[in-house]
Amino acid sequence: DLSYLIYFRLFLHVFNGLNCLMLREILIARRRIKPYVLDTPIIRSIALSKRFESEIFLKLENFQITGSFKVRGVFNKLLKLREKGFRGRIVTVSTGNHGLAVAYASSVLGYESLIILPKNVVGYKLERIKLFGVNIDFHGSNYDEAESYARELASKGYEFISPYNDLDVIAGQGTIGYEIARDVPNIDIVIVPVGGGGLISGIASYLKETIKDVKVIGVQSEASAPMFYSLKADRIVKVDLKPSIADGLHGNIEDDSITFDFVKKYVDEIVLVAEDSIKEAMKMLYRYEGQIVEGSGAVPLSAILEDKINIKGKKTLLVLSGGNIDPLHLRFLMED
Amino acid sequence: DLSYLIYFRLFLHVFNGLNCLMLREILIARRRIKPYVLDTPIIRSIALSKRFESEIFLKLENFQITGSFKVRGVFNKLLKLREKGFRGRIVTVSTGNHGLAVAYASSVLGYESLIILPKNVVGYKLERIKLFGVNIDFHGSNYDEAESYARELASKGYEFISPYNDLDVIAGQGTIGYEIARDVPNIDIVIVPVGGGGLISGIASYLKETIKDVKVIGVQSEASAPMFYSLKADRIVKVDLKPSIADGLHGNIEDDSITFDFVKKYVDEIVLVAEDSIKEAMKMLYRYEGQIVEGSGAVPLSAILEDKINIKGKKTLLVLSGGNIDPLHLRFLMED
Repeated sequence: DLSYLIYFRLFLHVFNGLNCLMLREILIARRRIKPYVLDTPIIRSIALSKRFESEIFLKLENFQITGSFKVRGVFNKLLKLREKGFRGRIVTVSTGNHGLAVAYASSVLGYESLIILPKNVVGYKLERIKLFGVNIDFHGSNYDEAESYARELASKGYEFISPYNDLDVIAGQGTIGYEIARDVPNIDIVIVPVGGGGLISGIASYLKETIKDVKVIGVQSEASAPMFYSLKADRIVKVDLKPSIADGLHGNIEDDSITFDFVKKYVDEIVLVAEDSIKEAMKMLYRYEGQIVEGSGAVPLSAILEDKINIKGKKTLLVLSGGNIDPLHLRFLMED
Repeated sequence: DLSYLIYFRLFLHVFNGLNCLMLREILIARRRIKPYVLDTPIIRSIALSKRFESEIFLKLENFQITGSFKVRGVFNKLLKLREKGFRGRIVTVSTGNHGLAVAYASSVLGYESLIILPKNVVGYKLERIKLFGVNIDFHGSNYDEAESYARELASKGYEFISPYNDLDVIAGQGTIGYEIARDVPNIDIVIVPVGGGGLISGIASYLKETIKDVKVIGVQSEASAPMFYSLKADRIVKVDLKPSIADGLHGNIEDDSITFDFVKKYVDEIVLVAEDSIKEAMKMLYRYEGQIVEGSGAVPLSAILEDKINIKGKKTLLVLSGGNIDPLHLRFLMED
C-alpha cells in the first residue's frame, strides 16, 4: 500500500517541516542499525588528490557488509518493522545488491524472506544470494513482471521491501551522510551515484540540512538517466534504457517515487557520464587505491574524469557505493 | 644496528617477564596508531560457517589503509621514532605491502623515504608505491643484494624499517590481536598467515596472554616454509623457495629474527598448504563473501579447505591479511 507515500509527497509540497523530520529519522536509524552494519572508513586518497589538484576523499561503502550500502536501508526497514511487532514474511524483487542485503538482513534477524526474480536471471550476485539459504522464486520474463507479482504477494501477508521508494530505506542510507559530516570537517562537494535515488536522497537530506554551502551532486550513466531527465521535465518521466556496466543504477523510476522530491529539494545537480569513462574510473580506483569498485560505485570518479564537476582546490568526497563487481568485469581491471 | 635484538632474545630465554612487556607495548601501540589506521571490521561469514560447520569470522585487513595490515607496524615504528625526536630519512626494501605501507606512512607523517628495490622488479604494487611520490632506487639483482645495500645506508643516517624483525613493528601488528579479543568473545581458534612472522608474533602475544585456551595457528605455503622447518629444527634454517601465489609470505627468515622466539613461545602449530588450495581459497572468499583477498591473505582458508585444522563446532577466526591482488591473479577469480 503506497498511499502513505502519496500523502507524504503532498505534505512535502505544502509544508517545509520535513527538514527536521528526516534528520531525526536518520539519527534514529543510525542508532537502530549500528549493531548490524559497518561504520565504513573514509580515506583521503593521496594519489587521486595529486592527480586532480583537489583534496579527494573516498567513502568506502564497497567495504560495507554484503559489499554495498544497501544493508543500511534494509536493516533500518526490518528493524523498524520488528519494533512494531512484525513477525511475517518478507518479499522483494532484486537481482543485485538490494537482494543480497535483504537475504543477509533477513537471515540475521530470523525473518523468512522470498526473493522474486525474472526467469532469465543469471549471474554472480544471484549465486551469492542463494548462499544465504533464502527462498527464491522465478516469475515473469522481466523485472517489471517479477515486481508486480511480488507486489501481489504483499497483499497476501508478505511485507514488500522497496529498494528505494521507502522513507525508512532512505533514512537508513542517510546514515552515510551523518558519517561524512562527522569524519570530514569542511567538506565542499559530495558526489553520489544515482539509480532509484534512495542513496542520494538520504545523504543529501542530512548534509544539506546540517552543513552550510555543501554541494551534493548526483551521477548517472547516459545509458540509464531517468532522474536526470525527470529533473529537466520537472516530473518523473520514463527513458529508453541502454545496457550499462553500472547495473546497480539501471532502470526507470517508479511513477510516485518519493526520491524524486528529495532530489528536487536537496540535490544541486545531476550529471551524466559515458560508459567508457565508468570503466576508466573502475580501473583508476583499482590502480591508484587498490579499491575494487563496481560500475555503479565508480560513477562519481567518472564525473571527475570527464571534467563534469569543478573540484579544483575543493574538499571533495566520492561515495563508492559498492564493490560487488561481476567476475566478467574483473577483466577490465587487468587491461592496460 | 641489530644488537638490541640479540640482547632481547637472550632476555627472552632467561626471563619470562616478556609477557606483560609485549602486552603493554601492544596497548600503547594501539593508542599511538589509532588516528592513522583503520579498526578493520570482523564479520561472521554465514556462507562459510554453513559450509564448514563451524562459526567462521573474518578479520578484514584487506580493508586496511593501503590494503594490508602492514601499516599498523610501520606507523607504530615511525610514530615512536617521532616521539623520540627523529627527523631523518627512512629506508626500506620491499616490493610489496611493506613498501606500500612505508610509502604511505612516511608521506602522511612527512618523512622523506627511500625504497630500495632489486633491478628486475616490476609489478602492480610497485606502480602504486610510485604514486606516493617517494624516492625509489634500484640496486642489486635480487632482494638480498638490495637489502644489504639498504642496511649500508642505515649506517649513513637513514633509519632502516624492517618488515618483521622489529619489536615496534610486531607490537603494531599485535593491535589486531587486541581487536579480535574485543570483538569476538569466546574465540577458540585464530588462523594467521606466516611469512617473516611479524603478524603472528604480534597477534599471538596478545591473545595467548589474555585468553585462556585460545589456539593460534599459523599457515605457510609449501612453496616457502622456512618458519615451519625452523620450528622442526628448533633453530632458524634456510629452505629452498619455489614460486608462490602468496608472494607476501615469500622468502627466508633473517638468521636472528626475534619472530622465531615469539612463534616458538606462543604459536600452537604451523601448517602447510598447497598452491592450488590457495587459489581455491581466493576464489571461495570472492564467491562466498565478495572479498578480494591476495594469496597471502587466503592461506588461512586454504588450511581449512585442506582439512589441516579441526574447526568443527569451534569459533574460528581467519585473518585475511591483505587484498592487494595483482591484476594477473584476478584471472583466477573469474574461472569456474
